[in-house]
Amino acid sequence: MNTMPNWLKQRAYLTPDRIALMTDDKTLTFRELHELSEQKAYVYQQMGIKKGQHAAILMKNSIEMASAIHALTYLGATAVLLNTRLTASELDWQLRDSEAKFLICDAALNQEWENPSWTTIDSIEHASTITGPVQYEYSFQLDQTATIMYTSGTTGKPKGVLQTYGNHYWSAAGSSLNLGHHHDDRWLCAVPLFHISGLSILMRGVIYGMTVILHESFHPSRANRAIMEKGATIVSVVQTMLSQMLESLGESTYPGTFRCMLLGGGPAPIPLLKECEMKKIPVYQTYGMTETSSQIVTLSPEYSLTKLGSAGKPLFPCEIKIMKNDLACPPFTEGEIHVQGPNVTKGYWKREAEIHNGWLQTGDMGYLDEEGFLYVLDRRSDLIVSGGENIYPAEIEAALLSHPSVIEAGVTGMPDAKWGQVPHAFIAVNNAVSEEELISYCSAMLAKYKIPKRIHFLSKLPRNASNKLVRRKLAEALGGTHD
Amino acid sequence: MNTMPNWLKQRAYLTPDRIALMTDDKTLTFRELHELSEQKAYVYQQMGIKKGQHAAILMKNSIEMASAIHALTYLGATAVLLNTRLTASELDWQLRDSEAKFLICDAALNQEWENPSWTTIDSIEHASTITGPVQYEYSFQLDQTATIMYTSGTTGKPKGVLQTYGNHYWSAAGSSLNLGHHHDDRWLCAVPLFHISGLSILMRGVIYGMTVILHESFHPSRANRAIMEKGATIVSVVQTMLSQMLESLGESTYPGTFRCMLLGGGPAPIPLLKECEMKKIPVYQTYGMTETSSQIVTLSPEYSLTKLGSAGKPLFPCEIKIMKNDLACPPFTEGEIHVQGPNVTKGYWKREAEIHNGWLQTGDMGYLDEEGFLYVLDRRSDLIVSGGENIYPAEIEAALLSHPSVIEAGVTGMPDAKWGQVPHAFIAVNNAVSEEELISYCSAMLAKYKIPKRIHFLSKLPRNASNKLVRRKLAEALGGTHD
Repeated sequence: MNTMPNWLKQRAYLTPDRIALMTDDKTLTFRELHELSEQKAYVYQQMGIKKGQHAAILMKNSIEMASAIHALTYLGATAVLLNTRLTASELDWQLRDSEAKFLICDAALNQEWENPSWTTIDSIEHASTITGPVQYEYSFQLDQTATIMYTSGTTGKPKGVLQTYGNHYWSAAGSSLNLGHHHDDRWLCAVPLFHISGLSILMRGVIYGMTVILHESFHPSRANRAIMEKGATIVSVVQTMLSQMLESLGESTYPGTFRCMLLGGGPAPIPLLKECEMKKIPVYQTYGMTETSSQIVTLSPEYSLTKLGSAGKPLFPCEIKIMKNDLACPPFTEGEIHVQGPNVTKGYWKREAEIHNGWLQTGDMGYLDEEGFLYVLDRRSDLIVSGGENIYPAEIEAALLSHPSVIEAGVTGMPDAKWGQVPHAFIAVNNAVSEEELISYCSAMLAKYKIPKRIHFLSKLPRNASNKLVRRKLAEALGGTHD
Repeated sequence: MNTMPNWLKQRAYLTPDRIALMTDDKTLTFRELHELSEQKAYVYQQMGIKKGQHAAILMKNSIEMASAIHALTYLGATAVLLNTRLTASELDWQLRDSEAKFLICDAALNQEWENPSWTTIDSIEHASTITGPVQYEYSFQLDQTATIMYTSGTTGKPKGVLQTYGNHYWSAAGSSLNLGHHHDDRWLCAVPLFHISGLSILMRGVIYGMTVILHESFHPSRANRAIMEKGATIVSVVQTMLSQMLESLGESTYPGTFRCMLLGGGPAPIPLLKECEMKKIPVYQTYGMTETSSQIVTLSPEYSLTKLGSAGKPLFPCEIKIMKNDLACPPFTEGEIHVQGPNVTKGYWKREAEIHNGWLQTGDMGYLDEEGFLYVLDRRSDLIVSGGENIYPAEIEAALLSHPSVIEAGVTGMPDAKWGQVPHAFIAVNNAVSEEELISYCSAMLAKYKIPKRIHFLSKLPRNASNKLVRRKLAEALGGTHD
């Protein structure tokens, strides 16, 4: 099995009149979404996008964005999904690294690019009718790269994660075996489509033939209205979204048709889970990453109470193990989480694969209990998760170290009531420089959510015997007093 | 993606305490089914069954049979599923053709084999505890042959259809995308596990983590009780079963939790569908065959009323086309049904593949309407479907022709109120021979359901210009009077 019919095309054939997408002001059936996507594909083809090429997308959640993604599948081109919160220099780097020949871009998000190596296409440019000759790709190779998303590693520069059609299919199928699949399901997508949490909802929509309710951005009361008035049965959230939704919900409750609050982006605090339990909100905690095309471990309903705090067990076709010194750990022993499955990436764009014998070393720490439930202790030793965005300290440290006065820099996440975590920087300097100056300096290089909320000045940073920075000891350096 | 964890093993890990199998007197969780299957695998290994070998199973629906099938997966052996209604000589032929090294057999079904080339293992032989060393296969190669089922073609002798793990997985996944998948689903299996209709339920059970209610054989009132008292939400039936269930149901109705009557084995008569509509029984008509590992086309719920009589549209990952003279037919033009998809067999055991560019030529006739709904007109020009069993005229004709007095023989299906169709034979003889004598002669060679219900004597049989038997004209030879 290597090919499959294009999912949207197949849906336009199988279930043309079902609703594919709902936004606040528009509703599209699968047939309409297919037609819109073909029109876009026509424009893109006229502008030169060819099979096998990379085309980047820099857009906000919208029907235009969803159809742009589908349009690229009709051309056999790979979509490079760019985070709209990045700075021009971060975007420039990803555009060049990905070798994107085109950039499909919302006008409001466009930048003054310097010598771009790509052609920019306005996201709302579209053909009213198709006139010339067209040639569309109506089937997928399952090992063909559908999408690329950038994620940072421990080394600083982001890497393009290759996500194949097979990865997306198996992710959707694995999720449905776990969460079930009802004919009246509507999945609310208030997370960005440029993240795997959002894109995977779009994919499930066409694979399941399910309605996706698409919000341009997250607002707690609108998300609640989608559940209470628009029939959303499943919602993907991260902790900060869920907290805000509960606050906005007040004394109200969700209707009985609401069946799944899929909570990703790191372990959830017990009080939040208890509150949901009290309000009869079915929370499915999940653990996943860009490299696993969304969920890989999810806590299934029968265990949601007895295994509070666990991320659950792998999706049906997947496997996990905990490794330490090249050996699999026994239950309750902490080690690195390794995962395997058909939704796991085949590797990174232009980088050596970090997959060994099919196993991805996540860099995250955790343990299994005696029944094989996974408990995630830390996302990579250094990863900061802030309001659902992953922040990699090395990237911020590199920005700080590029300032002439900074001789040492370390970044770590500090607890934050609203965002879960926010980045704090710890630096040593050889010349006087103010916190404000450094923050302003970072702003030119880093997306807003990555800019350190505080910068702490130390005489030297904690390092281990081999002089490697020990990030988890940074906070200790503050001593008993928070400055 | 080429490997997957063994499904039952994975279920014993992921959802150990869910009920896997229910019979009238026993209930097994996935953990218990796994343990029982491992015990059987241990016995089989001790008796010599090895990875890659073929082991035939001749058993009635039972927990023993289900665990025997799973046990073979733990050994990496291929199960050859034998129809318990076949005669000793038919079985002998399939056992030899399949090169089965072992026969796992219910004592009551065992035969006096002549010089068997296989070792017979009693189906209830099992180890109380595992003592010696064991080596089980805990992962599947998706292109590995899981099971072989024999089906006849137009040429007389049956052929072994190869069903891979991938075929079974994609069949189950495709079915769930179409029928949905609820946590409280229980699928009643009152069709034989040696047919794909039954085996596919067993596979869905471990892939979905769903309870299978297993009946040794079909009884209308017991099937109704499974729905009304034991929580069956889905039932697989053929027309004759459905008719009997309705009769037994009388004025009662099914509970609202019952959500799918999956009706296979040929087009259903409109009055039956109308009666179900009146009784609010959700009938999903489906079209499939051994070569497609069960369903390939199913009528989804939103069209069950407007497209009465259609078999529906393909499962999500599948495609169909209607071919005539090597060209695809436009809507409403009759031709041969060709199918493609990951659940379609890679071919037949020891026979040349009849798959061309991934497309299986089914030999069945049909047409598509303007929206792409399939209407099946005839199962292969000559196939007789009798109470869910496929009967191939060529096989019966060959038996009749082996009698010294018979010089011509043709077999066709005649309408039957109970079975849908029954086989009638039309023969020309060179010596006087009675109908009774020929029927008794056939009994030694053919399973009971294949024995002609009537034998009609003609002076010569209808043949076309190239002297080929025209089976569909046989019934006309009877003229206005049914003899």
